[in-house]
Amino acid sequence: MAVHETVPEVKADSDSPRRDLVVMKFGGTSVADPDKIKDVARRLVRAREEGHGVVGVLSAMGDTTDELIRLAHAISPKPHPREYDMLISVGERISNALCAMAVQDLGHEAISLTGSQAGIVTDTVHGKAKIAEVRATRINEALDAGKIVLVAGFQGVSADSHDVTTLGRGGSNLTAVALAAALGATACEMYTDVEGVFTADPRLVPNARKLDAVTYEEMLELSASGAKVLQLRSVEFARNHDVRLHVRSTFSDAGGTWIVDEEDPVLEKAIISGVAHTDCEPLYRVSSIDAARLFDRLAAANVNVDTILQVTGGEIVFSAPLEDRAACEELLGGLDVEWSMRDDLGKVALIGAGMKSHPGIAAKTFATLEQAGVQAEVISTSPIKIACHVASGDVPKAVAALHDAFELGTA
Amino acid sequence: MAVHETVPEVKADSDSPRRDLVVMKFGGTSVADPDKIKDVARRLVRAREEGHGVVGVLSAMGDTTDELIRLAHAISPKPHPREYDMLISVGERISNALCAMAVQDLGHEAISLTGSQAGIVTDTVHGKAKIAEVRATRINEALDAGKIVLVAGFQGVSADSHDVTTLGRGGSNLTAVALAAALGATACEMYTDVEGVFTADPRLVPNARKLDAVTYEEMLELSASGAKVLQLRSVEFARNHDVRLHVRSTFSDAGGTWIVDEEDPVLEKAIISGVAHTDCEPLYRVSSIDAARLFDRLAAANVNVDTILQVTGGEIVFSAPLEDRAACEELLGGLDVEWSMRDDLGKVALIGAGMKSHPGIAAKTFATLEQAGVQAEVISTSPIKIACHVASGDVPKAVAALHDAFELGTA
Repeated sequence: MAVHETVPEVKADSDSPRRDLVVMKFGGTSVADPDKIKDVARRLVRAREEGHGVVGVLSAMGDTTDELIRLAHAISPKPHPREYDMLISVGERISNALCAMAVQDLGHEAISLTGSQAGIVTDTVHGKAKIAEVRATRINEALDAGKIVLVAGFQGVSADSHDVTTLGRGGSNLTAVALAAALGATACEMYTDVEGVFTADPRLVPNARKLDAVTYEEMLELSASGAKVLQLRSVEFARNHDVRLHVRSTFSDAGGTWIVDEEDPVLEKAIISGVAHTDCEPLYRVSSIDAARLFDRLAAANVNVDTILQVTGGEIVFSAPLEDRAACEELLGGLDVEWSMRDDLGKVALIGAGMKSHPGIAAKTFATLEQAGVQAEVISTSPIKIACHVASGDVPKAVAALHDAFELGTA
Repeated sequence: MAVHETVPEVKADSDSPRRDLVVMKFGGTSVADPDKIKDVARRLVRAREEGHGVVGVLSAMGDTTDELIRLAHAISPKPHPREYDMLISVGERISNALCAMAVQDLGHEAISLTGSQAGIVTDTVHGKAKIAEVRATRINEALDAGKIVLVAGFQGVSADSHDVTTLGRGGSNLTAVALAAALGATACEMYTDVEGVFTADPRLVPNARKLDAVTYEEMLELSASGAKVLQLRSVEFARNHDVRLHVRSTFSDAGGTWIVDEEDPVLEKAIISGVAHTDCEPLYRVSSIDAARLFDRLAAANVNVDTILQVTGGEIVFSAPLEDRAACEELLGGLDVEWSMRDDLGKVALIGAGMKSHPGIAAKTFATLEQAGVQAEVISTSPIKIACHVASGDVPKAVAALHDAFELGTA
């Protein structure tokens, strides 16, 4: 389901728009130890020396945040949300301050800013705050002074109460995209431990190919269908604010995958971009309930409902990701309805922006699965996706067959 | 040497002065693990339930700050001071947020504040910032709402640049005393791992007695002469702002030692309070230099010069604590002077506010040392102190002899 962040207001308090600003975001594995942080500093400095304005956004080092969470639960079975945010936001402060030191040792000026100092203003929903506004005065001043600016990801400050807030899962990505939007960056580079987005999971399909570019919509479908490179929320945010994303590896200089608007020249205009999959996606059947009421309750419980099929006779069938299973079961158990769940199915999804102008893709998909001896239990489609629930054990051969049939791999 | 903090302005923005407010400060060993933090929470809640307004100031847990320092030095041989402060200030944020959670679980409202949120405004000298002002608006609002307020010690925010600053060694004590002054607290309780201030080190003198109360001046002399309970700086600050200090044990309910003004009724008006000592205090001899120039340079190098003797012929003799030895030697080596150092001496000091009105104490001191077979190499006095440098090996018997001669112990 879509996550809508409020559109951040951009305060244009700099006379010289930095057309060539890059926001570079590094995940936890990219900053896991001091040596890796020094590598990140070298990357930031290289971009600066190439003439870019540079804003870095670093996640917390390795498992710092997990350790803080463990501490909180050693203190309290249900930690107070305000204090919990105060606690778990310190990891990013550590990594960004360390990286600023490393940049300075390379002979460049740098400054690290907390979410609050960077002007990331949010609502007051602790643990999953939404960015309301980016007040970039202090960042712009530092950029104008030629500094490399490091911003602690994942966190902001609430407009009303001036409390520290956190943005939820994937929060550092969101910080990076929001800053890229507010500052008018040329690109938001997402450094991670994979080389980009692939036509299929290389562990299942040895000749899977790295994609040079996909559209926001394709990336959203890929994410929703199991490609774990980026969270839905940051892709949505980038799409809503026209931020060009570049997913690439921290450990290599090769280009990664651009995630851009349909009109962007970087796109190859392929018909099919890739095959995504999940090994297990539970399927629920619920009877004697009004659909509006059911999905309203599921949304309130933060369940990301994926496929929805309403069958005749009032029975509703839907699927939702494995991580939402406990929330789903708790919700359904509390409603006065009959329901059942099966967890022996996975999902394969063929995704491509060109699909909408090329009929016959669905037919070829079903024929391919049939030839591979795979039974499609539930089918769902969008203009750029055909997804099938299949037996979990059949997922690998379904992915390989589709990847092969649509000639997505390297020769 | 005295440390003078700027007198903090008190913003009187609360109509109801809390005459019965206590500031309770807990050191690193008192908050070393989650169970100890829960104990601290229980203490805070007990004080609240007794009707006090309660402000807690916690140091960082155990060796958190040391680990952050190690990280910084793994990144940079000389970490940038601003980023270093950003980094090493997070430990207090962690402990105070955890304690707020623990208080909430005990059914009381609590809020943890960073130094910046608490209004601890400092100058911009990173690593040893001085408190310029306490803007206690947010603390007062929380206290008025009945909350237990937790403030991250050791840190503030610079008035000009809004950067995180740290206050140097013993910074959390200083935070507590500054808050007690600004909020008009009844007392500033310093919880630590000792039971209070003793007439002598109990490891040297088995019948040493815990003192119920000493004056600020006595405590300053005791601290300068080796009693490690409180740093000079926080005692000075308390004296300058009339804050009643109570040093006591985190691990017991017994009263500790009050540190108060000479007129305070809690004082027993003993002639002698105690015997302090240091096992080694280096003694320097410098010739061919102007005293003003020498001590100016030593002050600039942050050397806490203790005893100063100027001998005939232009030779200057002074002592300084062992921890300042490297700084002293570097400084003297860089001056065009002849100098020597001996490190085979320790110091014993008899301290008592009643000394000034009781002649004969000095004579009895020297007679006692002579009877014990201890040679006093250098003697220095103040109105409330008689200190002697003696051979390091003689320190234990000198302390025991003086403690006995002045009948300071329990019967």
